[in-house]
Amino acid sequence: MLYFIVYDVADDDVRRRVAELLKDSGGTRVQYSAFTIELDSPHQLDILLQRIREVIGASKARVVAIPVCEADLRRAVTIIHRYELREEELLL
Amino acid sequence: MLYFIVYDVADDDVRRRVAELLKDSGGTRVQYSAFTIELDSPHQLDILLQRIREVIGASKARVVAIPVCEADLRRAVTIIHRYELREEELLL
Repeated sequence: MLYFIVYDVADDDVRRRVAELLKDSGGTRVQYSAFTIELDSPHQLDILLQRIREVIGASKARVVAIPVCEADLRRAVTIIHRYELREEELLL
Repeated sequence: MLYFIVYDVADDDVRRRVAELLKDSGGTRVQYSAFTIELDSPHQLDILLQRIREVIGASKARVVAIPVCEADLRRAVTIIHRYELREEELLL
């Protein structure tokens, strides 16, 4: 199952570490603070969210994880206007 | 159909206007740069995305709109840690 994960994290350093965790877990960055990630089971999502909680620690944060079925993903629309995501920029 | 709309907009003023457009169109803010919005048809999504394009104008932006079916929405997970969204804060 593919999940769409979006996060608001107040602290810059913690936010960068959440992004690194999602990337290291196999996620694909689709927006500055949003990743898609393929997970085999709801249990894997629990493990990932627990890791995210550990990174967040006592920082202010809000994370939403929404499963996206293939039919919905096929109908997703992306508008890009002069804005390519560059990993080296995003992870600074 | 419910859509999940996430946007990266480089310019602060343009980003605020995109948020205002989504709010005025009936959207619910779920993250700093993410809304859910109920739309009756794909045509309505086209109209909304066209309006977003008009607001963006020549600014740098990237917008993703993903339809979310009810089954997926029921399985969505939100982690909130000391971080309540406050409209007056978000729209500044």
